[in-house]
Amino acid sequence: MIKEIINEIKNADTILVAGHIMPDGDDLSSVTSMVMGLEKIGKKVVGVIDDEIPEYLSGFEAINKCVRDFDCAKNNPADLIIIVDASSPDRVGRVQDLFEYKRVIVIDHHATNLNYGNINWVVPESASAAQLVLEVLKELNVEYDEELATINLLGIATDTGFFKYSNTNSKVFTDAAYLVDKGANLNKITNQILENKPIEHIKLMKDVLEEMRFEFDNKLAYSTVSLEMLNKYGIEQKDTPPFVGDLRSLRGVEVAIMYNQAKDNEYHISMRSKSWFDVSEVAVHFGGGGHKKAAGFSYKTDNIEELMKKVSNFIGEKL
Amino acid sequence: MIKEIINEIKNADTILVAGHIMPDGDDLSSVTSMVMGLEKIGKKVVGVIDDEIPEYLSGFEAINKCVRDFDCAKNNPADLIIIVDASSPDRVGRVQDLFEYKRVIVIDHHATNLNYGNINWVVPESASAAQLVLEVLKELNVEYDEELATINLLGIATDTGFFKYSNTNSKVFTDAAYLVDKGANLNKITNQILENKPIEHIKLMKDVLEEMRFEFDNKLAYSTVSLEMLNKYGIEQKDTPPFVGDLRSLRGVEVAIMYNQAKDNEYHISMRSKSWFDVSEVAVHFGGGGHKKAAGFSYKTDNIEELMKKVSNFIGEKL
Repeated sequence: MIKEIINEIKNADTILVAGHIMPDGDDLSSVTSMVMGLEKIGKKVVGVIDDEIPEYLSGFEAINKCVRDFDCAKNNPADLIIIVDASSPDRVGRVQDLFEYKRVIVIDHHATNLNYGNINWVVPESASAAQLVLEVLKELNVEYDEELATINLLGIATDTGFFKYSNTNSKVFTDAAYLVDKGANLNKITNQILENKPIEHIKLMKDVLEEMRFEFDNKLAYSTVSLEMLNKYGIEQKDTPPFVGDLRSLRGVEVAIMYNQAKDNEYHISMRSKSWFDVSEVAVHFGGGGHKKAAGFSYKTDNIEELMKKVSNFIGEKL
Repeated sequence: MIKEIINEIKNADTILVAGHIMPDGDDLSSVTSMVMGLEKIGKKVVGVIDDEIPEYLSGFEAINKCVRDFDCAKNNPADLIIIVDASSPDRVGRVQDLFEYKRVIVIDHHATNLNYGNINWVVPESASAAQLVLEVLKELNVEYDEELATINLLGIATDTGFFKYSNTNSKVFTDAAYLVDKGANLNKITNQILENKPIEHIKLMKDVLEEMRFEFDNKLAYSTVSLEMLNKYGIEQKDTPPFVGDLRSLRGVEVAIMYNQAKDNEYHISMRSKSWFDVSEVAVHFGGGGHKKAAGFSYKTDNIEELMKKVSNFIGEKL
């Protein structure tokens, strides 16, 4: 499969690399690394994400240099589209409008990927999409420098929760060692992502802890961030911190959920499990998707209590 | 150096392995791994730490099996003492009383090590003592199983802040990959250490955040945990959570300090820096020690405000 991808890349002059909407660290790392790597072997490349870059990821020069908005994609010709980390066409936003005129390669690690490209390289065992990009760039003999190594490591670090989640297999460590040897600056990544919390976020956290509720003998923990809470501290919705990990970290909690309000009548629900519970089943039931231990969905409602009750009931039957 | 150590081990029948007081994850991992590894090659081994094991590390069967108290050390003969992770003799508690009758090997990664053994293998570039133990056991051709691999990885994980601190070099990742390949269960480590927070700790955290103060344009952040705060939530002093990392993670903070009350008139002060500040200088000035980005000291006073002022003044001159 990777050989086919290499051939397609070699035969293309201009390439569009796209990631998914609501981009996370792995997505931005994968798009940026692919753009930088392909540029190093002489391709004309445009990186595109049809959404805003969250504040916590905006401190990386390489991302700001390589990732453009949809208009830029529309106006740039490309022989080939490479999609990274997006499990379905609707996840790439308006970039899907360009699909019918181009060859499309999909590179992803979500088991739920719909294989919507002409070539689909989907590796669910891979902890991050960034590692698949690393494989491609290694195969293309791209020479890594500090900037590329750092931005490639970013995706591995963030999608493994900085080497903590259960997807952290020995390949994760081997790839991280490779990139650190190539000059990757892990300190820059941790300082930007983990050690750069606005003080307002910690104030918001106090409120989230006040709202925290437990059910089923503390096996389920959940809380909410409302628009009102965000306004109180001047935090933008897209910058809502991922408190769901803090909830999961509590003793006895198997499933943690954050109900993050996105609009007056819409919520983004983020779920994590600790050991055995499959939160992707819950996500799929409510119209979303994800992995066994990390999944989510969006839901339109102006009655959050009702939604919480629905979700709790659904989970309670399995807990 | 390691060859000499291997020779001493080969020539000894009974071995005492000791770690430092106020043991952390790396210390307990190093002692336990060394004990288990040496037992696998047929030595009679006793592991000793002259202090209590903190609650957050008590969930590891291997530690409870291998680490005994001082009486056990006193009553067991040993041809050889191996000290791990302890930079000075007073750090091993009463175990130092046994030194004059035995050969002593010191294996450590603290640059401040006093070289107080007959053989001293001190490698400041090593992120953890557990990695030096791994080197020794590899050299002895010890066969790793899941239990040994997991307990050996524990020290690497905890002393690098789970692969986040600036000491996380490519050797850290290579060693982690090796141990995961040998069956190390990283998930067990993260679940035990990071995902097992008593709910009371998060309540205490809210209080710590209330007490938090900033100085020098937010470059210094500090807070305190008093015995009264611990009592309020029924938390034992030895189980005081390491909030200093939470303080350092805030935007703009270069130095973070926690003043943890140990007795009515004694405090344990824990310091972390983010990028450039050397907190070990501060620690040494006040009678303690440590690394550039993580150091600490103990201080006898019944006036914590006065101590805070002293420390702030000392730091302020350098910030």
